[in-house]
Amino acid sequence: MPVNIPLLLPENLLPVAGVALGIAEAGVKKANRKDLLVMVLDEGAKVAGVFTQNRFCAAPVMVAKQHLVQPSIRALVINTGNANAGTGEAGIQHALATCSELGRLLGCTTQQVLPFSTGVIMEPLPIDKIIQGLPTAVSNCKADNWFSAAHAIMTTDIVPKAASKQVQIDGKTITVTGIAKGSGMIRPNMATMLGYVATDAVISQPLLQTMVQYAADHSFNRITVDGDTSTNDAFIVVATGKAGNAEITRKDSSEFTQLQQAVTAIAADLAKMIVRDGEGATKFITVQIEAGKDAEECAKVAYAIAHSPLVKTAFFASDPNLGRILAAIGYAGVSDLNVDTIQLYLDDVLVAEKGGRAANYQEADGQRVMNQSEITIRVVLNRGTASTTVWTCDFSYDYVKINASYRS
Amino acid sequence: MPVNIPLLLPENLLPVAGVALGIAEAGVKKANRKDLLVMVLDEGAKVAGVFTQNRFCAAPVMVAKQHLVQPSIRALVINTGNANAGTGEAGIQHALATCSELGRLLGCTTQQVLPFSTGVIMEPLPIDKIIQGLPTAVSNCKADNWFSAAHAIMTTDIVPKAASKQVQIDGKTITVTGIAKGSGMIRPNMATMLGYVATDAVISQPLLQTMVQYAADHSFNRITVDGDTSTNDAFIVVATGKAGNAEITRKDSSEFTQLQQAVTAIAADLAKMIVRDGEGATKFITVQIEAGKDAEECAKVAYAIAHSPLVKTAFFASDPNLGRILAAIGYAGVSDLNVDTIQLYLDDVLVAEKGGRAANYQEADGQRVMNQSEITIRVVLNRGTASTTVWTCDFSYDYVKINASYRS
Repeated sequence: MPVNIPLLLPENLLPVAGVALGIAEAGVKKANRKDLLVMVLDEGAKVAGVFTQNRFCAAPVMVAKQHLVQPSIRALVINTGNANAGTGEAGIQHALATCSELGRLLGCTTQQVLPFSTGVIMEPLPIDKIIQGLPTAVSNCKADNWFSAAHAIMTTDIVPKAASKQVQIDGKTITVTGIAKGSGMIRPNMATMLGYVATDAVISQPLLQTMVQYAADHSFNRITVDGDTSTNDAFIVVATGKAGNAEITRKDSSEFTQLQQAVTAIAADLAKMIVRDGEGATKFITVQIEAGKDAEECAKVAYAIAHSPLVKTAFFASDPNLGRILAAIGYAGVSDLNVDTIQLYLDDVLVAEKGGRAANYQEADGQRVMNQSEITIRVVLNRGTASTTVWTCDFSYDYVKINASYRS
Repeated sequence: MPVNIPLLLPENLLPVAGVALGIAEAGVKKANRKDLLVMVLDEGAKVAGVFTQNRFCAAPVMVAKQHLVQPSIRALVINTGNANAGTGEAGIQHALATCSELGRLLGCTTQQVLPFSTGVIMEPLPIDKIIQGLPTAVSNCKADNWFSAAHAIMTTDIVPKAASKQVQIDGKTITVTGIAKGSGMIRPNMATMLGYVATDAVISQPLLQTMVQYAADHSFNRITVDGDTSTNDAFIVVATGKAGNAEITRKDSSEFTQLQQAVTAIAADLAKMIVRDGEGATKFITVQIEAGKDAEECAKVAYAIAHSPLVKTAFFASDPNLGRILAAIGYAGVSDLNVDTIQLYLDDVLVAEKGGRAANYQEADGQRVMNQSEITIRVVLNRGTASTTVWTCDFSYDYVKINASYRS
């Protein structure tokens, strides 16, 4: 079961002026399931995104990147049930056909629509079902539909993921609302992580692109469940420009910083929900690397720990078998690391230093922390000022069970 | 259960002239268990080794590397039950004390003994028990003791691992016999892989070192169970020089090639046994990457596949969910990879090409191969002449069960 995710209530999700959302049951893979989401944007909305680095990127990712080159995006369309990945040239044609049909319904061009797909890889997209479902999704578009939208993009997620907040910028109330889906970096057979955040703030296109990269680097790029990277990952930020603040055009302005913090906070909330709903997760683990030479080596150490099946199974078992963390630090690929100067903490408990177990460490203290459902692994490298935080979960029987199930 | 490992019979292990092996039940961790092995080498034996790259390398690894600098090694001592890793300065002293005591018993120096430990990390080595056990191990030393030796170094291995062969070189019969232990790259709480191969061939010290690196690169460095690298890994080759062949001193000689092939074959046999006895393994998987630009990119693709929990759980389930392999190739970190020119085969079945499913691929064909206990994943990159092979196993419930068990 998901680790400490509060129940999502519709009234906690604030509409964003200039965004309307509509859903449909298109029957992409299963009947009677919300599997199609349309987000319609008012004219003038700015859109920026970051996409998977996987070389086998899915057809909709390729099309969305091309369409994002021109500035006037009017709609996003997301289907679940099929990732349209590993589908070759036919996949591209299907993604374009989806955009073309939605453009026809909305009165905009094919290029003004961004397509997204999530679901099984290497199966042809059932394009007829999607095209048949689009009119329903368009017809029920409304601003206060984020709750349904969060449900419509779920695949094997156990819980919907959405968050919302308001901040005051330039004397105006700015709303930021987002939804995400994902429950492993790749689901069993799913091509996975999608995140959409919208704000009504007024901001220039170049700064919006800067902001989406920053927000991704501090949220979705900081989580891992199993180390696999999906062919379909995408994170999109929409700024509708309806809030009436003076346009944010300078990266060094306090307004930019405020908006970036708000968007990043929502993205980080969503990212952490993905880990909390990680496949088979029973614990939420924060891996915090401090006093490194640079961010790169901190990330190497953090991911070596966060990806180690041995560390993750020890956390599942609540077993303070912490030598496994030392071993992971040791093979992280930081070639000149001096293990004698490193400190390892589990929450507030000093576990290891000077190349071995800390003199005052008691297994009972380690056990106390391991019994918790939220744990911080803190590694102090003592060789610089850089730091990095990564969020992950443990590794349980259910992970294998979920991923060994025949595609269902 | 181990995947297709033939039953080990004592009579299949050939003694190597100049090597005597003795064992004891020292009670390092548990009573009534063979946990101490001494290998005594005749004067003039040459020894070479390769060791873990883990920055947290264990105390015995540090001591063994130092002792190997001088040329006249006379004994190896290996204990199970405790890895003497993450034990700081006290660990070094314990490793040296083991060498000193064995040296005293054998009439050689501390520096002529190489120590090895395998077992739980970050616990003090029970040095008194080891010192008390040494006289027994020394007193039962004999040449035809490889079968017992293979058992004495087991920790959580299900089966002992040993292999032996003879080749004719320079008109002489050369014997090569080896033992190994390991059953994950790290066992649950064990610091893991150890391999020892002995031959009676006469070979120069520099060429022996060249050979051990080559053999490791084509055997133990080509296997992975879970991607974790132990703090204690070591692979040692002993050449006792008793066979009477003319000393092998040239790397370009056919004698060197013959011996290297024989030693590498034994090392590869042992390495594959480690995978076949991998934690929870039900399938033995060969990952073969062909037509790459260089060996490095072939290895990146091979390990991305071999480490992917999603690929490994699909094989456990015999589920031909082969998009997961494409996704792993895509995130392997080969930045200019053109996915449209890659072919993916499962044994002889062409699964994917041109960026998607192959036109003639039938799921029934993939299913037929997936049902086997031995499977080859073959990826043809079509951009060069380099190739690489990696051996791995699938990822099962039992992997989690074994690794989530409290240290026992």
